[in-house]
Amino acid sequence: MVHDLFTPSIQHTLDLVGIFVFAISGSLLAVRKNLDVFGIVVLAEATALGGGILRDIVIGAVPPAAFTDLGYFLTPLIAAVLVFFLHPQVERINWAVNVFDAAGLGLFCVTGTTKAYSYGLGLTSSAALGVATAVGGGVLRDVIANEVPSLVRWDRDLYAVPAMAGATLVALCIRFSTLNAVTSGTAVVAAFVLRLLAMHFHWRAPRSWNRRTATVEVEQHVE
Amino acid sequence: MVHDLFTPSIQHTLDLVGIFVFAISGSLLAVRKNLDVFGIVVLAEATALGGGILRDIVIGAVPPAAFTDLGYFLTPLIAAVLVFFLHPQVERINWAVNVFDAAGLGLFCVTGTTKAYSYGLGLTSSAALGVATAVGGGVLRDVIANEVPSLVRWDRDLYAVPAMAGATLVALCIRFSTLNAVTSGTAVVAAFVLRLLAMHFHWRAPRSWNRRTATVEVEQHVE
Amino acid sequence: MVHDLFTPSIQHTLDLVGIFVFAISGSLLAVRKNLDVFGIVVLAEATALGGGILRDIVIGAVPPAAFTDLGYFLTPLIAAVLVFFLHPQVERINWAVNVFDAAGLGLFCVTGTTKAYSYGLGLTSSAALGVATAVGGGVLRDVIANEVPSLVRWDRDLYAVPAMAGATLVALCIRFSTLNAVTSGTAVVAAFVLRLLAMHFHWRAPRSWNRRTATVEVEQHVE
Repeated sequence: MVHDLFTPSIQHTLDLVGIFVFAISGSLLAVRKNLDVFGIVVLAEATALGGGILRDIVIGAVPPAAFTDLGYFLTPLIAAVLVFFLHPQVERINWAVNVFDAAGLGLFCVTGTTKAYSYGLGLTSSAALGVATAVGGGVLRDVIANEVPSLVRWDRDLYAVPAMAGATLVALCIRFSTLNAVTSGTAVVAAFVLRLLAMHFHWRAPRSWNRRTATVEVEQHVE
Repeated sequence: MVHDLFTPSIQHTLDLVGIFVFAISGSLLAVRKNLDVFGIVVLAEATALGGGILRDIVIGAVPPAAFTDLGYFLTPLIAAVLVFFLHPQVERINWAVNVFDAAGLGLFCVTGTTKAYSYGLGLTSSAALGVATAVGGGVLRDVIANEVPSLVRWDRDLYAVPAMAGATLVALCIRFSTLNAVTSGTAVVAAFVLRLLAMHFHWRAPRSWNRRTATVEVEQHVE
Repeated sequence: MVHDLFTPSIQHTLDLVGIFVFAISGSLLAVRKNLDVFGIVVLAEATALGGGILRDIVIGAVPPAAFTDLGYFLTPLIAAVLVFFLHPQVERINWAVNVFDAAGLGLFCVTGTTKAYSYGLGLTSSAALGVATAVGGGVLRDVIANEVPSLVRWDRDLYAVPAMAGATLVALCIRFSTLNAVTSGTAVVAAFVLRLLAMHFHWRAPRSWNRRTATVEVEQHVE
């Protein structure tokens, strides 16, 4: 079965790690937006669980895992409490948070694609839903915080491409019947490393062609 | 069966009252945001039904009750029409709207928890989904209106805590097999009174510790 | 069966046309908001598929058609690529985009209502869900782009009314057992023409009564 890539306990531990780091990123945004402790908890839960809940509802796996596994619900709470009390210290290790977030991104795009395929979706749809699982929580976080999602802003380092690379690798492995713990682990690492490189070299996605001619005056004031 | 707390007709009437007052709060925000009549209707429906639709989709109770019971759909329309024609008068009784909204909050956190449990969720998850049912409509209202959700703003009176208290009481009653019309009614009243007290005494939730040292200059300009 | 209004291939072609034009409108907003190429793709997919995915989740038709039919997923990608490379040219034919968007609106309100009814919803709920299918993608587009949804702004031409007219016509046809390719085609055309007229004559929806007395000073500064 394709959704047992690792032993259940390893898979579960990796899930919780991904959920934890996504929750840290949600909590930090809540503090920066000057929200209260419930804002921290809401953004922690939404960022960590939003992508997975969306995936499970789309594939019909209800109630979503986030509501049947208590650990999925409690882990973001721990992250929120940590950020609540130790905010300056967490900010100071922001690079570490970014590294963990990259790990979560790699993990979620792979498990999202695999779970979607195991529920009968086609390969392309599975990869698309895997990407949505990985980036969905972050979009929900930014929508609730009333910000333009970091995912779609041109002045942010590539975030979707690493997830797309990881999800595509998994889909190819499924297509050629070579999906196992090693190949899916490779896909996780590929997405993880791609995201680290994008952050290190500030790789960015292009905006539409011929846009500058039309908006050059506006941009002079904005930038 | 845990989801028959009251006689069906009483339960249904209470649901409609909660839906109505939530719809009033959505309609009022639409008028304040200068939206047109469809904005009033959209925010009325979203505020009143959003939490329940989310709950029903998560637990797999589709189509959601909001789409099978015509009264659930029509009640927000009546609230929207009332606010459309009588906006200044409704604003003038804003304290009454707040009292009814508190009643809706108490009712929805209890019925949400109970319904989630009756669909097989665990106690903690049921309570969490009960809180989400109670506050979800308000978050959706604020997201559509392009505002930071009132739920997560530090300068608003406590809203989540009363819902959490009510949902927790219900979960405890289920745990000790004492859930009936009296105990669940007590949970509704507890959440209701807590919310009234929070409004009266302007109880607010704290923001993260050590935040001030970092943001004191910014706040001087903002506040 | 009510959901086979046209031959499957005609129905499918019409769906793809509607999806394509909605995706163009999402892509154009992404360019105007200065988003990168992923922003263009995300808004294209969200605008084109959001309404249908919401409808399918509500009626329990999971996985939604958007995830089982590859054409539904790829069509918005084509629209996004077109806008990415040919943005000024697409802007220049904006009137054509608006005409196609009106066609998508007419089509989606009719197919949404029909599909909801075929999954067992009542007539009123089916019509309401049909309207939500037609306008839902646009609301999701605006929420992700961090704008007040165009649907609810008083300074935009009527958008909901044509969809409501089309959905109501379909519901009446179902009620009187006269729904067929001709009558549902008529409903599509009625909604389409109504939307064109609303754009041509700048029909707008009223805001709440007695609003001006309260907000006149504010508006003098805003407008």
